[in-house]
Amino acid sequence: MKIKPECAICIVRQVVDAVKEISKEEEVQFKLISSTLSCIKKVYGPDAVPAWMGTEVHRYLKKISGNRDPYRYLKDRANKLAIEYIKSIEESLKKYNYKPPLERLRYKIKLAIAGNVIDFGPYSTDVDIDRKLKETLEEDLKIDHSRELLEDLKEYDRILYICDNAGEILFDKILLEELKEYCEVVASVKGGPILNDATLEDARYVGLDKVVKVVTTGCDVIGVNLEESSEEFLKEFKRADIIIAKGMGNFESLTEYSIDKPVYYIFKAKCLPVAQFIDVEVGDNILLKKLQK
Amino acid sequence: MKIKPECAICIVRQVVDAVKEISKEEEVQFKLISSTLSCIKKVYGPDAVPAWMGTEVHRYLKKISGNRDPYRYLKDRANKLAIEYIKSIEESLKKYNYKPPLERLRYKIKLAIAGNVIDFGPYSTDVDIDRKLKETLEEDLKIDHSRELLEDLKEYDRILYICDNAGEILFDKILLEELKEYCEVVASVKGGPILNDATLEDARYVGLDKVVKVVTTGCDVIGVNLEESSEEFLKEFKRADIIIAKGMGNFESLTEYSIDKPVYYIFKAKCLPVAQFIDVEVGDNILLKKLQK
Repeated sequence: MKIKPECAICIVRQVVDAVKEISKEEEVQFKLISSTLSCIKKVYGPDAVPAWMGTEVHRYLKKISGNRDPYRYLKDRANKLAIEYIKSIEESLKKYNYKPPLERLRYKIKLAIAGNVIDFGPYSTDVDIDRKLKETLEEDLKIDHSRELLEDLKEYDRILYICDNAGEILFDKILLEELKEYCEVVASVKGGPILNDATLEDARYVGLDKVVKVVTTGCDVIGVNLEESSEEFLKEFKRADIIIAKGMGNFESLTEYSIDKPVYYIFKAKCLPVAQFIDVEVGDNILLKKLQK
Repeated sequence: MKIKPECAICIVRQVVDAVKEISKEEEVQFKLISSTLSCIKKVYGPDAVPAWMGTEVHRYLKKISGNRDPYRYLKDRANKLAIEYIKSIEESLKKYNYKPPLERLRYKIKLAIAGNVIDFGPYSTDVDIDRKLKETLEEDLKIDHSRELLEDLKEYDRILYICDNAGEILFDKILLEELKEYCEVVASVKGGPILNDATLEDARYVGLDKVVKVVTTGCDVIGVNLEESSEEFLKEFKRADIIIAKGMGNFESLTEYSIDKPVYYIFKAKCLPVAQFIDVEVGDNILLKKLQK
C-alpha cells in the first residue's frame, strides 16, 4: 500500500521519538530533526510505501547521528516487560490447551495482536499494559479468517512467520508453538536494527530460537523488501506454503508484491490510512487472508 | 517563549490540517505538504518562537496554494456554533449578574477559556462541545490571578484585550462586557487571515464591535509581533494600562517582549512545551499575571 498525505505527521513524530532516544540534549535534537526533515521531503510522495519510507528516514537518522540502534534501550525494556507479563498469565494460558483447535488458535492470534498493540514505550505503565491486553483479548477479530487459516494449517506443511517488534515476539512465540502442532515453522526477524523491530539478539533473548528455526531478513528494512532480502530469507520465503506476516509494517510492504501462496496478516489497525485500506476502523484487530497473485 | 524539538510534529500536523481545507485532491495535498516541509526546515530551530514559526509556515502555504484564507469555512462554522451555544446558556448566565464581583469575573474568565478549548473543527459534535465546556467550567484555574486582575481593574482605566480565534470571540464578548464595568476596553483581532484566528469579519459577524471598539493588529501574524503591527494597534497597545492576551499564540509571542504594564494571559495549556514553560500540566486553565519589564 501507499502512504496518505497525513503520513507526514506520523513520520515526523517517529523522528522526534527516535531523536529523544539518541540524545537528551535539545541542541542535538534540534539539529537531528532539522536535518531529517530534508530526508523526509525526499522520500515523501504519493508513490511511497509507508514501511519503506520509514526505513529510509530511520536509516538516515542512524547515519547522521552515528547511533546504529537508537531503540536498543526500549527494545530491552520491551523484552523484559513481555517476559514478566507472559509469566504472569502462564497459568490462565494453560486452560486453552483443552479448548477446541479453532478457539485455541483464535485466542493465540488475539494474544499475538495484544503483543503488537502494547506500548512498551517509556511512558507506559503496568496498568496500561494490563488494560490494553485485556481489551484486545475481549474484542473480536474484525476480520477473522481463522477458519481459513486452520484449514490451510491442516493442508499445508511449511510456514514462514515474519515477526515485527521486540517484546511482541514473546507473544508470537506462544502462537508459533501452536502453529508447530500443524506445520514446520520458520520465523524471521530483522537483519539489522531499525525502529523497535526485533533482531536476532531479541529473538535469542526471549528464546524464540528454542521453539522454531529463526532466520533474518538480512537487512534493516521495516516490513519486507524482497529486493534487499538475504538469500537465506528468500529461500524460506520460496519454500513456505503459507506466509504469516505480523504487524502493520509487514502488511504495508508485502501488499506491494504478487505472491503465489496464501498470506495471512495479523495486526491491529493502528492508523487511519491502514484501516481505510482494508475498510475497518482504527483499533480493529485483524487476521486477514490475502491471495496476492 | 521558544519552541521545543517536538514542536516539529505539531507544525506538520497543522500543515496537513490546513492542506485538507485547501484541497480535497490527494495529489494536490501531497505537493503542498512536500513543498511546505522545506519552509518548516528553514524556520525550525532552538530560537524559533512557536506562534511566529507558525506564521511563516501558514503564510507560505497561503502563498503557494493561492488560497488566502484556508480556514474560512471552519471559522464560519465556529462562529455559528458559538452563537447557538451562547444562546443556549443565556438564561444560566444571567444568574451570575447577582454574584459577587470576584466570582462573576472568575466565571467569565473560565467561560472565555472554554471558548478557547472547544474544538469547532469538522469532527466535533454538540455532545463534545457541551462536555468540554462543562469540564472547563467545573475545573479551577490552575494559575488564578483573578484577585490581582480585579484590583487592577479598579485601579486602572484602559484595557487592550487581544483576541484569539473565531467562534471563541463570542465567549470573549461576555468577558469584555464584564471588563467594561470597570475600564474602557479595546479589543484587537488579526489584520489578515491566518489559521482560524478571528479577523474583523468575524468580529463584526458576532457583534464584538457593538460591545467594544475593535482594532486589528494590521497583519496576519499568529499571536503578536510588534514589529509588524499597525500604527493603530501600537497606539492602543501604548495607551492601555493593562494588556489582556487570549490563547497560547499571544502568550508564546508576547512573552518575547519587555512590556511596561501588567499583562494578563488567559488560556488553556494545550501542549507540553507551553505547560512546562509555566510549570503546569497539559489541560490546565490559566489566568496568569506577568510583569515583563
